[in-house]
Amino acid sequence: MSIFDIINHNTHMGDWLTAELDAVSMVFDQHLASEFSPVNTLCIHTGRYRGKMLRPSLVLLSGMAMDGSPIEGASDHRTIAAVTEMIHMATLVHDDVLDESPIRRSAATLNALHGNEMAVILGDYLISNAFHLCSTVGDPAINARLGEITNMLCEGEIVQLANRENLDLSEDLYFSIVTNKTASLIGGCCELGGRLSGADTEKQAALYGFGRDLGIAFQITDDLLDLTADQKTLGKTVGRDLDMGKLTLPLIRALRDGDDARGISALVQDRCHAQLQERLHEDGWFESAQHSAVERVESAKQHLDGLPDNAATTMLRLMADAVIQRRF
Amino acid sequence: MSIFDIINHNTHMGDWLTAELDAVSMVFDQHLASEFSPVNTLCIHTGRYRGKMLRPSLVLLSGMAMDGSPIEGASDHRTIAAVTEMIHMATLVHDDVLDESPIRRSAATLNALHGNEMAVILGDYLISNAFHLCSTVGDPAINARLGEITNMLCEGEIVQLANRENLDLSEDLYFSIVTNKTASLIGGCCELGGRLSGADTEKQAALYGFGRDLGIAFQITDDLLDLTADQKTLGKTVGRDLDMGKLTLPLIRALRDGDDARGISALVQDRCHAQLQERLHEDGWFESAQHSAVERVESAKQHLDGLPDNAATTMLRLMADAVIQRRF
Repeated sequence: MSIFDIINHNTHMGDWLTAELDAVSMVFDQHLASEFSPVNTLCIHTGRYRGKMLRPSLVLLSGMAMDGSPIEGASDHRTIAAVTEMIHMATLVHDDVLDESPIRRSAATLNALHGNEMAVILGDYLISNAFHLCSTVGDPAINARLGEITNMLCEGEIVQLANRENLDLSEDLYFSIVTNKTASLIGGCCELGGRLSGADTEKQAALYGFGRDLGIAFQITDDLLDLTADQKTLGKTVGRDLDMGKLTLPLIRALRDGDDARGISALVQDRCHAQLQERLHEDGWFESAQHSAVERVESAKQHLDGLPDNAATTMLRLMADAVIQRRF
Repeated sequence: MSIFDIINHNTHMGDWLTAELDAVSMVFDQHLASEFSPVNTLCIHTGRYRGKMLRPSLVLLSGMAMDGSPIEGASDHRTIAAVTEMIHMATLVHDDVLDESPIRRSAATLNALHGNEMAVILGDYLISNAFHLCSTVGDPAINARLGEITNMLCEGEIVQLANRENLDLSEDLYFSIVTNKTASLIGGCCELGGRLSGADTEKQAALYGFGRDLGIAFQITDDLLDLTADQKTLGKTVGRDLDMGKLTLPLIRALRDGDDARGISALVQDRCHAQLQERLHEDGWFESAQHSAVERVESAKQHLDGLPDNAATTMLRLMADAVIQRRF
């Protein structure tokens, strides 16, 4: 079941969430509007990258999880939801520069259309607007927390980049990279959503833990799809991780625990996509990574045990299941 | 007289400012320190780009301008001074990616040493840390103002990039680009420095106006140096603007008001550096641009008329003079 299916199958909650996400999109677009037309042209293009709105959904549902009923006039939740999507969008735009990707969500990437320079600056514009929008909530602690999270995000990216072509990358360092670059923001979405609804520090920590573990499961799945999916279904270039010398979980395990580390190394160095895919499948390394993603989802859901049982926490649990079932 | 000379010639003020700038550098370095060594390696390299510390100096002096005596325990001023330098450093790192520059302050650029990808992410890390550090002051209005300024900065860069190779670039649009991408941050330094010392909105606006006009004069001079200086003196690659199709003031005027726009156009399109330099010099277009810089400095100083006469405002006036006298 996809995240969209979950929304559509839960009519009452789904209607509320759909309407809220539309409102978040409006906040997003209005905040980026500029007096300069070249800026607007670029921002409109990023609208094509908007997908599942996972992060805004998590902000809104985590906010609602506190007392289980839809939040009335959730303007701060909407603002922070738009902020997290803007940060996410900035990372997509800059990631595409880093990965030299020509395609994203079946559309040409900004770097492919307007050059790397424009993509760099547009990413900066999105980051700048995210912090500006965040400050309109008027709580410096929220700005500080967002800054902490984006610091972690950048650190994760730097460490990942510094470890390109490192065939000795450890599983610990892989999880540290994933936690920083992906899971910290997703955890932050849940934590801040709860915080805006008055969650105490314990509940905020539980929500952060839920989002972080969901985020790790999400990234393991994303990495697997880059190795196993076809480009048409995925809507973006596949096999980029290998092309860029980025080692992910199945490969790290095959190199450390497999009985032919040398053969696998050679396939990585020669960028033999099809042969690697076959070997990783046959030797059970895809399954092994998938299993780790399932475990993370279970761990994510356990973090919710101390929160009230209601429609929102039910939906958060379904979303955790969905991130590892997706095929795109 | 350079900014360093000004500091050294004003013993009492100079000693205070030198000590404060050292403290700002410490805040800067401490805030960027990471648990990950690849992050620290990159941040240490940016220390080589640190130059005149114009922006932090303006924050501190504008703060002191309110009552004329050195600020005791200026921790918020130091914080915001470090924030402005971090934003400036991020723009240098990303600008070098945009301009494909190999040299900055006589050292190899980050993009040249570690690739464009690393330079993009390091710039992001600097921006993220700047906003995080800013939020430690605990005033959301200051975060909001910083966000407004960085939004303008990015808009200026986008519009400039969208107008590469545009031989019809108007003087109005040139000044709009310069105001956004350079002068807004310099104006913001003065405004925020005053604000932290209790300046009312009128004085804040005067300080912003001073910094903005100083910033415009600074950028006109920077553009002139790119056309006229030699690389060894300047410590960075010269002639980049022309190589990148970026039109600056002398060229804009030669194309609009000169008697051989066609000849000049051809020289621009063929990237004939030496011939262009000769023509612009002979026809008085360098002098014309220099004259505009002088006018901006006068206008900058007039903004200070409503502020008290003291050692800090005297030094701000000297700094305004210095930005157009620099040769590097």
